[in-house]
Amino acid sequence: MRVRAHREAAGLSQEGLAREAGVHWTFVNQVERGLRNVSLHNLLKLAYGLGVDASTLVRRLKPPEG
Amino acid sequence: MRVRAHREAAGLSQEGLAREAGVHWTFVNQVERGLRNVSLHNLLKLAYGLGVDASTLVRRLKPPEG
Repeated sequence: MRVRAHREAAGLSQEGLAREAGVHWTFVNQVERGLRNVSLHNLLKLAYGLGVDASTLVRRLKPPEG
Repeated sequence: MRVRAHREAAGLSQEGLAREAGVHWTFVNQVERGLRNVSLHNLLKLAYGLGVDASTLVRRLKPPEG
């Protein structure tokens, strides 16, 4: 989802994005490390916090194998 | 996410979409009724089954209140 790239482009720290998105900073950290299969609601919160449309975060992503 | 509109435009039944996406048809039914906070992986599977990019399903969606 390239959350880190969008976050850095927005000049936000992980704590800053967490505050804007209304999630815990450890969640942001785990998402950026690909450790979370985020829910739609959290995807929308992250997009809101990054100031981008959610479609930007999932464009051209392929389904997981299996 | 307008899954039903995309499904009908693709000429698929709920069972047909479930088969294409690799999910259970009851899951498709629940998503269409807004009863599921789908995961990113299932969002990508549904998009694949519908033959659309996942960004299409989440474009301009707002985060949930609260």
